[in-house]
Amino acid sequence: MESQGTAEDFADAPGQDDLLTPAFVDAVADALEREEIDAARTLTLELRAADLADLIEFLRPELRIALIKALGSDLPAEMFSELQEPIRDELVKEMPVDQLAEVVGELDSDDAVYLLEDLEESEQIEILSKVNRIDRARVRRSLDYPEDTAGRLMQADFVAVPPFWSVGQTIDYMREAHELPDSFSELYVIDPAFHLMGTVPLSFLLRSRRPKLISEITNTDVHTFSALQDQEEVARDFERYNLLSAPVVDEDRRLVGVITADDVVEVIQEEAGEDIFRLAGVADEAITENFVQIAGSRFTWLFVNLLTAILASIVIGLFDATIEQRVALAILMPIVASMGGNAGTQTMTVAVRALAMKDITAVNTMRVVGRELLVGLINGLLFAVLLAGAVLIWFGSGEIGVIIAVAMIVNMFVAALSGILVPIVLDKLGIDPAVASSVFVTTVTDVVGFFAFLGLAALWFS
Amino acid sequence: MESQGTAEDFADAPGQDDLLTPAFVDAVADALEREEIDAARTLTLELRAADLADLIEFLRPELRIALIKALGSDLPAEMFSELQEPIRDELVKEMPVDQLAEVVGELDSDDAVYLLEDLEESEQIEILSKVNRIDRARVRRSLDYPEDTAGRLMQADFVAVPPFWSVGQTIDYMREAHELPDSFSELYVIDPAFHLMGTVPLSFLLRSRRPKLISEITNTDVHTFSALQDQEEVARDFERYNLLSAPVVDEDRRLVGVITADDVVEVIQEEAGEDIFRLAGVADEAITENFVQIAGSRFTWLFVNLLTAILASIVIGLFDATIEQRVALAILMPIVASMGGNAGTQTMTVAVRALAMKDITAVNTMRVVGRELLVGLINGLLFAVLLAGAVLIWFGSGEIGVIIAVAMIVNMFVAALSGILVPIVLDKLGIDPAVASSVFVTTVTDVVGFFAFLGLAALWFS
Repeated sequence: MESQGTAEDFADAPGQDDLLTPAFVDAVADALEREEIDAARTLTLELRAADLADLIEFLRPELRIALIKALGSDLPAEMFSELQEPIRDELVKEMPVDQLAEVVGELDSDDAVYLLEDLEESEQIEILSKVNRIDRARVRRSLDYPEDTAGRLMQADFVAVPPFWSVGQTIDYMREAHELPDSFSELYVIDPAFHLMGTVPLSFLLRSRRPKLISEITNTDVHTFSALQDQEEVARDFERYNLLSAPVVDEDRRLVGVITADDVVEVIQEEAGEDIFRLAGVADEAITENFVQIAGSRFTWLFVNLLTAILASIVIGLFDATIEQRVALAILMPIVASMGGNAGTQTMTVAVRALAMKDITAVNTMRVVGRELLVGLINGLLFAVLLAGAVLIWFGSGEIGVIIAVAMIVNMFVAALSGILVPIVLDKLGIDPAVASSVFVTTVTDVVGFFAFLGLAALWFS
Repeated sequence: MESQGTAEDFADAPGQDDLLTPAFVDAVADALEREEIDAARTLTLELRAADLADLIEFLRPELRIALIKALGSDLPAEMFSELQEPIRDELVKEMPVDQLAEVVGELDSDDAVYLLEDLEESEQIEILSKVNRIDRARVRRSLDYPEDTAGRLMQADFVAVPPFWSVGQTIDYMREAHELPDSFSELYVIDPAFHLMGTVPLSFLLRSRRPKLISEITNTDVHTFSALQDQEEVARDFERYNLLSAPVVDEDRRLVGVITADDVVEVIQEEAGEDIFRLAGVADEAITENFVQIAGSRFTWLFVNLLTAILASIVIGLFDATIEQRVALAILMPIVASMGGNAGTQTMTVAVRALAMKDITAVNTMRVVGRELLVGLINGLLFAVLLAGAVLIWFGSGEIGVIIAVAMIVNMFVAALSGILVPIVLDKLGIDPAVASSVFVTTVTDVVGFFAFLGLAALWFS
């Protein structure tokens, strides 16, 4: 029944997210299983690249390649840029080289690079040998730059003109030239050696009379990136200076490509996601990876945590005699450690984010550190009072109340200190603070939490 | 000495981040303190809006307004869009209404909205009354849409043309019209009632002959947002469909504005930062807020944590008799809870991020849940074996080794279960999973961790 419908029949709400309902995915899967190629085509032909990529990810592996074969040359090449890496690699391995070369030829150079970058060099060469010469040169140039650089992110298709052309000449050239990009919003002005001289937004060009020279309407104050710059820096500058597109130049300041804001949007999502994951001790993992790989990648972090937990237990073990005398200490001891851990995590998270955003600089480091220590001290005092009261009511012991209050102040202060200093020091050492900070911080707050509380108790009651 | 230099003199590296060195900030502050207005101007005149905003944030409050007065009409209006909210509000309060009105008149409508949105309505009206009629109408229209919607994000300045114009007519119109935006890359095609019919990229317009009609080169397959849509949805679609700009329509499908990718870049940074902070129990806080406010906002989260820590202590208290007999239990009990907390946080973080990215949908929820439970079980088994061995060596007790191993398996499984289900259920209930998940998850893993370990021990040794 549904097999003759189209994607739209399944969408009651206008949002694209509602398109891929379980019923729709099942209908496509059924059609593919029954080898009803036409039905599968009809259902999926009108999907946009990103939606088709999601659909393919939802299908069982053997049906994915079946759908790609069913769509044949109607498959939008951009779909591959929207796939998550493990699935992209799996499909690329199964596709015939000729179809891959066709896809690479259709893609913008930055998307082609994404498709090819994880393949063996011999496979890259084989595929690129079937692509036309100009496209091949563009893709190769991008692939030569290291991963996560502006050179990888850029698109090598752009329109460059000499400064001595007139507006009329330029417009005539664009009307006649065939190999221009589909859509673009700026022209790049270059000298004979391909050095970037400036840009002309199309809106300037359109509003100028035909005899005017390009050099007269060239904007020379252009934010330019070097091809070897890190993509995180590129993203930060795009955000900071509200850029919509920016040229990329090589070491000799020759124009080699253009980065547009839509590419940067993906980088920002990716980097933000990485920081979120790293803070929680999760390596980059796609939602599609299998459970053995995931368990393995999470094991490492948990193992480090086991070592720090054992370290905390050793600290507790130093005071076993004191605990044996007063079991209330065992009951209360996790509170001090837990509060310190949470306060330290708050401070650390703020610091990690501020470092990533370059909001902590040489100018304000001392001010930020001072502020965090004050915050730690204030909340330490508040919770010391609260907890001392609670302990007095619960155990009727003013002594343990005083001990826990002092331990709380100490640990909250230490939490603030380690929460702010650990990320800053790691950053100075060139280590990503998002990866390593939380192990250090929680180890410190656990050890100091138990040691301060039990140590004070041992002194007091000895 | 430095007072006659310019910003560039202080930058040895090309990156803009290196511009605002402590020496440079001090030089500006000195000039302002000595009321050497010209020196302060010379130093700061060439800074870009975002760098000037950073500089102002680094200065002491009384010097901020002094610098703004020193720059006078040379102050780039866009600077205000780059300020953090508390400082923006502080400056806006101190500036004379006339200067504010001038700034609002110069800004694009979306930036003007950012400047005005937190003011009292009476102040908004006073400032807007001094702005020209067209700008006022645009800003008012955006302000009428709720915060965090497409209507607030959009820019109300765009170029709209009727479909029956020729390319030549359109180009002539643009050459003569004065009130067009500075730079734009698309025209919007509208009917007489202002309904959006499609777009014409400028690159299409430029490449078409003058007699051609606009209707012939109109692209009708345009991704359009409704003014009331949430900005997070807008950002997701920009990323998903690689948009560079998109029109915004009102309830009657009339064109009211345009969103460009640079606006979306800020939204993505903001939302990602919010999620990072919320997962750590930090409310939105700018790096510039004072320490009393920060301590207050963090107190709430720590207080909730105190309650859950006390709950865990109550669980421990149930088994005080068992602990008194065997102090090794007190020493070891934090390990099971801590491992569960970390494993639960890993799963929860992956789930929260996947929900934010809409990577978990009705189609794959069961698959994702099943995968997380398997991961929890695998790592539970691995760490059970590891820890049982360690306990056997440390305490020479096979019994406690078996108990801690079983407790570990139970708690790691429960950690996975709560780590994946809590965010999914919160999301279904319309509660932001980033805000509330981690309290629930760590409470569960603490309580179950202590209960399983001590409860098993109580049974075994009773």
